[in-house]
Amino acid sequence: MTDFKEIILSKHLSTLFSKASFGIEKESQRITDKGSIAKTNHPAVFGNRSFHPYIQTDFAETQPELISPPTQSVDEMYEWLTAIHDVVLRSLPQDEYLLPLSIPPVMPASDEVRVAVLDSEADVQYREYLVSVYGNKKQMVSGIHYNFELDPALIKELYQIEKPALSLKSFQSEIYLKMAHNFLRYQWILTYLMGASIAADASYFEKEETKDFPLQHFARSIRSSQYGYVNKGDVHVSFDSIEAYVNDIEEMVASGKLSAEKEFYSTVRFRGVKRARDLLTNGIAYLEFRLFDLNPFAAFGMHKKDMHFIHYFLLYLLWMDEDATEEQMILGKQLNYRTALENPLTPSAYQAEGTAFLNGMLEMLDGIHADEEIVAIVKEKSAAFHHPEKTVAGQMVTAVKEGQDLTEMAVALAKKYKAEAWKRPYALRGFDDMELSTQILLFDAIQKGLKINILDRHDQFISLTYQNHREYVKNGNMTSKDSYIGPLIMENKVVTKKILAENGFAVPASGEYHSVSAALKDYPLFTGKGIVIKPKSTNYGLGISIFKDGASLENYEKAVRIAFEEDEDILVEDYLQGTEYRFFVIGNETKAVLLRVPANVKGDGIRTIRELVDEKNKDSMRGKNHRSPLERIEMGELEKLTIQGQGYTFESIPSAGEIVRLRDNSNISTGGDSIDFTDQMDDSYKKLAVDMTAALGVAVCGVDFIIPDYSRPSTKEAPGYGVIEANFNPAMLIHIYPYQGESRRLTMDVLRLLFPEMLL
Amino acid sequence: MTDFKEIILSKHLSTLFSKASFGIEKESQRITDKGSIAKTNHPAVFGNRSFHPYIQTDFAETQPELISPPTQSVDEMYEWLTAIHDVVLRSLPQDEYLLPLSIPPVMPASDEVRVAVLDSEADVQYREYLVSVYGNKKQMVSGIHYNFELDPALIKELYQIEKPALSLKSFQSEIYLKMAHNFLRYQWILTYLMGASIAADASYFEKEETKDFPLQHFARSIRSSQYGYVNKGDVHVSFDSIEAYVNDIEEMVASGKLSAEKEFYSTVRFRGVKRARDLLTNGIAYLEFRLFDLNPFAAFGMHKKDMHFIHYFLLYLLWMDEDATEEQMILGKQLNYRTALENPLTPSAYQAEGTAFLNGMLEMLDGIHADEEIVAIVKEKSAAFHHPEKTVAGQMVTAVKEGQDLTEMAVALAKKYKAEAWKRPYALRGFDDMELSTQILLFDAIQKGLKINILDRHDQFISLTYQNHREYVKNGNMTSKDSYIGPLIMENKVVTKKILAENGFAVPASGEYHSVSAALKDYPLFTGKGIVIKPKSTNYGLGISIFKDGASLENYEKAVRIAFEEDEDILVEDYLQGTEYRFFVIGNETKAVLLRVPANVKGDGIRTIRELVDEKNKDSMRGKNHRSPLERIEMGELEKLTIQGQGYTFESIPSAGEIVRLRDNSNISTGGDSIDFTDQMDDSYKKLAVDMTAALGVAVCGVDFIIPDYSRPSTKEAPGYGVIEANFNPAMLIHIYPYQGESRRLTMDVLRLLFPEMLL
Repeated sequence: MTDFKEIILSKHLSTLFSKASFGIEKESQRITDKGSIAKTNHPAVFGNRSFHPYIQTDFAETQPELISPPTQSVDEMYEWLTAIHDVVLRSLPQDEYLLPLSIPPVMPASDEVRVAVLDSEADVQYREYLVSVYGNKKQMVSGIHYNFELDPALIKELYQIEKPALSLKSFQSEIYLKMAHNFLRYQWILTYLMGASIAADASYFEKEETKDFPLQHFARSIRSSQYGYVNKGDVHVSFDSIEAYVNDIEEMVASGKLSAEKEFYSTVRFRGVKRARDLLTNGIAYLEFRLFDLNPFAAFGMHKKDMHFIHYFLLYLLWMDEDATEEQMILGKQLNYRTALENPLTPSAYQAEGTAFLNGMLEMLDGIHADEEIVAIVKEKSAAFHHPEKTVAGQMVTAVKEGQDLTEMAVALAKKYKAEAWKRPYALRGFDDMELSTQILLFDAIQKGLKINILDRHDQFISLTYQNHREYVKNGNMTSKDSYIGPLIMENKVVTKKILAENGFAVPASGEYHSVSAALKDYPLFTGKGIVIKPKSTNYGLGISIFKDGASLENYEKAVRIAFEEDEDILVEDYLQGTEYRFFVIGNETKAVLLRVPANVKGDGIRTIRELVDEKNKDSMRGKNHRSPLERIEMGELEKLTIQGQGYTFESIPSAGEIVRLRDNSNISTGGDSIDFTDQMDDSYKKLAVDMTAALGVAVCGVDFIIPDYSRPSTKEAPGYGVIEANFNPAMLIHIYPYQGESRRLTMDVLRLLFPEMLL
Repeated sequence: MTDFKEIILSKHLSTLFSKASFGIEKESQRITDKGSIAKTNHPAVFGNRSFHPYIQTDFAETQPELISPPTQSVDEMYEWLTAIHDVVLRSLPQDEYLLPLSIPPVMPASDEVRVAVLDSEADVQYREYLVSVYGNKKQMVSGIHYNFELDPALIKELYQIEKPALSLKSFQSEIYLKMAHNFLRYQWILTYLMGASIAADASYFEKEETKDFPLQHFARSIRSSQYGYVNKGDVHVSFDSIEAYVNDIEEMVASGKLSAEKEFYSTVRFRGVKRARDLLTNGIAYLEFRLFDLNPFAAFGMHKKDMHFIHYFLLYLLWMDEDATEEQMILGKQLNYRTALENPLTPSAYQAEGTAFLNGMLEMLDGIHADEEIVAIVKEKSAAFHHPEKTVAGQMVTAVKEGQDLTEMAVALAKKYKAEAWKRPYALRGFDDMELSTQILLFDAIQKGLKINILDRHDQFISLTYQNHREYVKNGNMTSKDSYIGPLIMENKVVTKKILAENGFAVPASGEYHSVSAALKDYPLFTGKGIVIKPKSTNYGLGISIFKDGASLENYEKAVRIAFEEDEDILVEDYLQGTEYRFFVIGNETKAVLLRVPANVKGDGIRTIRELVDEKNKDSMRGKNHRSPLERIEMGELEKLTIQGQGYTFESIPSAGEIVRLRDNSNISTGGDSIDFTDQMDDSYKKLAVDMTAALGVAVCGVDFIIPDYSRPSTKEAPGYGVIEANFNPAMLIHIYPYQGESRRLTMDVLRLLFPEMLL
């Protein structure tokens, strides 16, 4: 057999050796706040389980299975697991939680165990068959499956170096076979370190089992023991070679010892084919390791450190000289069973072997120049061989011995994990470096089961796929449904206005200027009129001055210069009397209307403006730099000037009920309040916004209207509005999390626009 | 009547007073290089005259009429006139020119005068009727019509200040009536200054005319004299009021003295209605002044200075106290006729009145703080009253007296003006501040008669309209035919590659890095392989390093740092062996394929590389900063390094026929040569480019392929290519003006894409 260690070292393949694909499947039971299994159905909000890529149900209706897509790193895998948990935890009924234990501490009565309500008749029947063979209590056990694939480039490289008398596929299978052999031999180490099903109530055991198992003792992992969910003793499948494996498994099915190939349970499985026989031609694509208990101390069932540990544990299986024989594998299985039932606070019976194995891992890490972080993790595990109380089971038993009831502990942790998911309900942990609008869209897409590909997370670029239909989305709502010219039009305020006017919409008159002197020359055109002076194409209200009752030449010039600081072209526009509203159009409907109120505080006759601002800024919905639905109110030069205009300083105490404005502009980004106005707004204006969006050739648009009376319908003769801006890629967050009024889930509307066939 | 002067001064309306809309219609005859009228038809390349907004024919088939659209300034009007001339002059047959004189110095025989070949039967019949009444020689005369409209805001403002007992429309008509009255009274001043039809051959005159007109003398303007194209003596129409005007003109038609209302010729016309009667309800929208001869010394028939002069001349007609009576208008007409026939080198008989009028203008200019430029123009005109040789007619006569034959002079000028239009054939004068691709697109759109609206020239944003179908275009080829997501994808090289790969196209493998250290860590993955290191999203070849045979760690690190100077993310990509080609796709066709050869010179065994570069850079197609189809070759640090790699300095003398590369990258923007390869390239690759464009969701795309053998078809098994980049808004110029090979008029393809119904 190939000496992988030697090739990797001599051919400098360490970098490639460390690259891999990862995926996790994590089951757990939904429980009530008492710790008993929930009686409700799988939440309907998750849509159709028959295609859902992230949220399935395992055996029981109460047993969601969370599946991370294949990722290129452990970090990404963990992010996905976090995000899917965020979605599931925030989608559960208020009084439901995810049990952080593999074996429910309180088992339901047998007749209360409900097999998953699936669309497929065959899937339900298979589950009922399993109940008949294994009983239904063991089916209630949950665990984590860890999928692992080496970089195909590594395998190709090794193949080219080694030039074996085999096909590339067969060579690949040989590699995975070696890993599987050694895994079976050394899996007990993982059970020792990470086993976490320390107890089960009496009803868990089959009658004949209880006489053997000392119920009064804790175990490292009942789930990984012979009392776990294992095949009957007459099922034997060789892992010696692919051929042996295929022949054995087919024989087991033919003889009726297994009802189907998938009924063969092993802590490692060959993946990538539908039928075992296809392994002969396609080879093993990747491996699935099914050994892992839920770690109650990890919010998502497994610590990220442990995921890294497993990665290098698996690499070491390939690296090591040894390739376990059939006999050694049988031994390994026995060691694992024994380890599983050891008292968690006693040292391992195989401490020496474990320590030696981890030392070998450390040697490998040294050889491949692995990150220090990884080395530290392995050293920690190594220490746990001398400190059994540091193993997961050890920690659990310690907690119970210190007086904690296992059920109570589980419920407390479950509640804590759910509360953490609700801490920033507008964000999606795992992806919280992305824009909030994309986070919310991802939340909805995960919930509904759209396949997500993060094409570029720095660039907020994703694809969503339903069946064979793929759509690309950037920044939450930029899609193929818009024509390109639309955003190009909207990037240019002058062009936008010209086109809206051409199409018969009411826009304020304006002049465009390329120089201060040109703007000054036209000052006479604007004397005595309310005007707005603004840069041609920047956003967020920067450089905008508003003179409701006209500007003196001096103030006009000042404002012109301020605007020119933001852009090389500026606009001087008629000021329209009325209130500004943002209309959010998707497709042919105005989905939300928002009133934005300039940053303000309401006096109480006691506190100063400064104190009132500080108080208002304490709201967890207010943050900085678009990391929250609302922005904190600043107390800078502009705010100072604004309250000066009302006769105040920051130390003034406004009277009770009095509203003090801190800004003239109403942008949320400068501390304004967002107030949903969708239902109040007369439909005629909503229709106009839709028509404008169509005229601009886009599907998603944020149109800013000035409307003096929102309840009076617009007519051709008396339009009753002026449109002052149209924005592509408009902010969604302000509508989804308004300061006041109803939330409008625009991200769901985006999904409906893109995937009408899903009938969301 | 309102005292406009007083209101404008007291209410500070000077700025508004000076704003106006302008338009020009300029006729001229197509001539041969001998100065005789062309015998060819109106060029078919101009498409259909029945809707052409810019290029029509006047009376004769040989008489193009060039029409500028309404503009908000004289400068813009002049730009349009320039651009339309560029199109017409460059579209004429090689041996045809535009006669710069109002009256052809060589008249064709009567039976050789060809009435315009128009679609409309009625239009042709009307022209034939005109021939029957006026003879066909006078129809051959050309001139310039100047359309003028005051700013409606001015009229509204004046109306609100004055509050007359009239409707706004009637008030507007009163204003234009005053201007018309005073124009008729003082038009002779324009004839004196700008008259330019000094002679006509005998055949021009009706038999009864020749006995009166002293043919041996030059005139200021035969066209503006009684021998011009004027109504018969029995046609009388009052300008006293709208009512009188309408009644008179209707009576003339009823009595058969005019065949139709449009047969009423006057040096000023009321515009904005189809039938005179509509003036009573709609009012006068604007005025048309028809007095102007072609100025042979102005490339487009009238100097811009004179356009400005006319603007303020017209304003003064409103400003002055006087409102000419019927009697004074009749006098004015007589003064004009007399002035027209004066000897151009003698002072005006009405010098005092002319000088006084211009002094009045200067007072007005002072009052409204007009630009010094305008004041200078008026002073120049004033001086011409004391120096008749400075008038246009005066200059013409002086030239003839100095021995120039009028025909020869006209032909020489016509040739000069045509040559000027051909100086930068890839540009469009009038719009040469815009990008060249937009200039060429505008050229084609003007030629074919699409209505153009320059929405934002700084932003290269235009609209094109054919009948009721409007399309917007930015930067020459960004349109509604692209979906928005396509350009967003292409802005991101990583996303582009992922999506192309997902769709089954061959892309080189690559790694993406956000930090130097991450890129360095992966160096082992790239050792010994040809690689390209480049920033993720910048263009023009900046920051790209190519290592065809792999890079040392040192060079790798250097290249990584160079790439990071251009972007915060970089790519390390497999280097593909082969030649790079740019495929330009529009709709579902690859319209052009281009080979770009890195900046190079070919040795001659005599000259140094420096001399060879200087020589190559002399080509007028080579310029700087994208102001020409090719860029000059630089001799900077990078070029120095590149030739060093070939064993040279700039002072080396390469042997005859040897090609020396000055750059490794092939971008045209760094001096590369563009070679059309459309016909040579195997169709399979062209098909692939179309499929990729569709996969990216756009209509226009520039796809960069690496192809080792362009003549070998691509197959599924042996793709024979790698796609390395896809570009939205790809450069068109390099295909339209390649260094070698056939020109591909992609701008026409864009028009075909946008307006398939035009069948261009």
